[in-house]
Amino acid sequence: MTEIMTETLTEARSGRLVNAHRGRGDGDGGVLAPLVRVTARAGLDPLAARLAEIRRWLGSDLDGLEAALGDAASAQGDLAQRAATHLLGRPGKRIRPVCVFLAARAAGGQADPAVLRELAVACELVHAATLLHDDVIDQGHERRGAPTARVLFGNPASVLGGDHLLVDALGRVRRCGQDRLLGRLFDVIGEMIAAEALQLERRGRFEPDREVYDRVVHGKTAVLFGWAMEAGAVAGGAPAEVAEALARAGTALGLAFQLVDDALDLEGEAEVTGKDALLDLREGKLTWPLIVACEQDPDLVEVLRAVALTPETLDDPLRATELRRRILATGCVMRTRARARALVRDAEAALDTLAESDAREALRAVVETAVLRAL
Amino acid sequence: MTEIMTETLTEARSGRLVNAHRGRGDGDGGVLAPLVRVTARAGLDPLAARLAEIRRWLGSDLDGLEAALGDAASAQGDLAQRAATHLLGRPGKRIRPVCVFLAARAAGGQADPAVLRELAVACELVHAATLLHDDVIDQGHERRGAPTARVLFGNPASVLGGDHLLVDALGRVRRCGQDRLLGRLFDVIGEMIAAEALQLERRGRFEPDREVYDRVVHGKTAVLFGWAMEAGAVAGGAPAEVAEALARAGTALGLAFQLVDDALDLEGEAEVTGKDALLDLREGKLTWPLIVACEQDPDLVEVLRAVALTPETLDDPLRATELRRRILATGCVMRTRARARALVRDAEAALDTLAESDAREALRAVVETAVLRAL
Repeated sequence: MTEIMTETLTEARSGRLVNAHRGRGDGDGGVLAPLVRVTARAGLDPLAARLAEIRRWLGSDLDGLEAALGDAASAQGDLAQRAATHLLGRPGKRIRPVCVFLAARAAGGQADPAVLRELAVACELVHAATLLHDDVIDQGHERRGAPTARVLFGNPASVLGGDHLLVDALGRVRRCGQDRLLGRLFDVIGEMIAAEALQLERRGRFEPDREVYDRVVHGKTAVLFGWAMEAGAVAGGAPAEVAEALARAGTALGLAFQLVDDALDLEGEAEVTGKDALLDLREGKLTWPLIVACEQDPDLVEVLRAVALTPETLDDPLRATELRRRILATGCVMRTRARARALVRDAEAALDTLAESDAREALRAVVETAVLRAL
Repeated sequence: MTEIMTETLTEARSGRLVNAHRGRGDGDGGVLAPLVRVTARAGLDPLAARLAEIRRWLGSDLDGLEAALGDAASAQGDLAQRAATHLLGRPGKRIRPVCVFLAARAAGGQADPAVLRELAVACELVHAATLLHDDVIDQGHERRGAPTARVLFGNPASVLGGDHLLVDALGRVRRCGQDRLLGRLFDVIGEMIAAEALQLERRGRFEPDREVYDRVVHGKTAVLFGWAMEAGAVAGGAPAEVAEALARAGTALGLAFQLVDDALDLEGEAEVTGKDALLDLREGKLTWPLIVACEQDPDLVEVLRAVALTPETLDDPLRATELRRRILATGCVMRTRARARALVRDAEAALDTLAESDAREALRAVVETAVLRAL
């Protein structure tokens, strides 16, 4: 969720501009644009240029993706479909589909473009389904720069919209005739639900626990990234070791992605990240930097536990600033970014086992961007 | 939902007794017991005796079913699993699984018992998943004689519990290696979600419309009964026309089942049905007898519309009784039961195309029970 919220709000800031260029099948579907803008803003022009290049390179794949996402639910459909359409129509990075397309090319082999598109669409739909349910669970008000579907259409519509997308996604993968991939997707979704349940169970009690954190993030974020990469490879008939290497890269990327989001919760200015500092803590979510901070400054545990119970105490800006300073003083953000970089190296090591190719370099650029986001 | 509520509350009344005999793998898993009790209470002893016989006949299949349902979620598991376990552990008729088992025998052929069990479990899990989500959508307080999972574990746990069971059910069918059945189940679940969304959309406005009613009930109840029968047939390798006949019988049974529930909402005494009269109307749900009543007494439309907007007016027992009398005076309940009987005849005509067998007669008994329930 943390990942998702930053992603969302960062996107929200660039939403208007992206939207101006955007539309189904116009060749510039807003895909990856938020990432490009972030890297450009951070003065990382070479990386921004590489991402723009990736976007052009994947042109027709991404156009097909946006068209298929547009068809997945109808604004004229029933309430469930309208809730889904609202979310899918907001500008998003579509980073999971991009992983599918790039992994297929990096793996070599010849994937049927139609199959690849369906797998990419399925990734995005599963992601969107979890967002629709998460927003009901968290009573979220804003996502991707707009009111959440549940605010506009009600909680029931958001629940049914998520059900609709989940079943649609699984049905698409079934029709691709890749039974093993379908089986893996069932496992992935099962892990996503279990991770969400674990997070829900821990909410409100602040118990810094590395193992619990890793289990939650693995399930909530990493496994779907892993599946995206694996799916691209499998669709092209890649050998098992290639598919496994890409799955490893995706899993590491997902975890790194989340760690950076966690860091942004503490270090980001609201003006840049678009979200309030300490939002995760207010929402009772365990983040990696808070775990590290408690290890360095054990008295923090009781302080954070009290805040998790009565988050409104952070409404006092002085108190919030003071707490944030104390947390940052432990060096926890630095260590979190260091762990994210280590995971990027893991992902790159996995990619290094593949034959050299433009697609492999493009995946490397995507992975690197994950840790450079909104510096 | 209507179907479900009556089913639930009827079960609730006999829950304690059933429970006393019940337990995993004890050979009398409570399955069908509520139906037997209902028919016995109504003085339909021969039918009750036939249902008891069916239960004994399906003995090991039903034991296996209960054991598998017990394993589908764990009371020691995460919040999502605990919410699911709570619902699955309540006594239920398991009428969909019974349809799977009986259809397999009626179709002839040799179904692998393990495959059959998984298909039966999948039916019940899909049904349970929709109940967990429905209770969140309707803010339901009681089901199967106990507080709903969302009351005990919270709405988020009920949403995740439903997700968990849905994915579990689909995963089981995939592992059965019956790809066509899996594809049909995706369609069925898609229809269930669309019907739920349609009902949600219409809620609170009272618009008596036969076509909308039939679409909602077809999606919410009939298609899963149809799939249950078809699945049993397909698992045994039955020819297409046999599977289709059983699917038709199941669909007609589901619709009849719902019509009888609708009738019970009006004619039943709370003491017998376990639910308040006019509960459907209070909840803003369109039922068949109300549609018929409005056709016979057109001025009722405005009256019912006003009640749908402000259901608390029915808290006045005099007013509720008067309204109920006016509705009953149109003969709508009689006509509703007549339509249910016509559907039973459709189901029986479909069954008549099969070769004569004990299983076919057992299915006939199940179908007949649907309209005799809680007379």
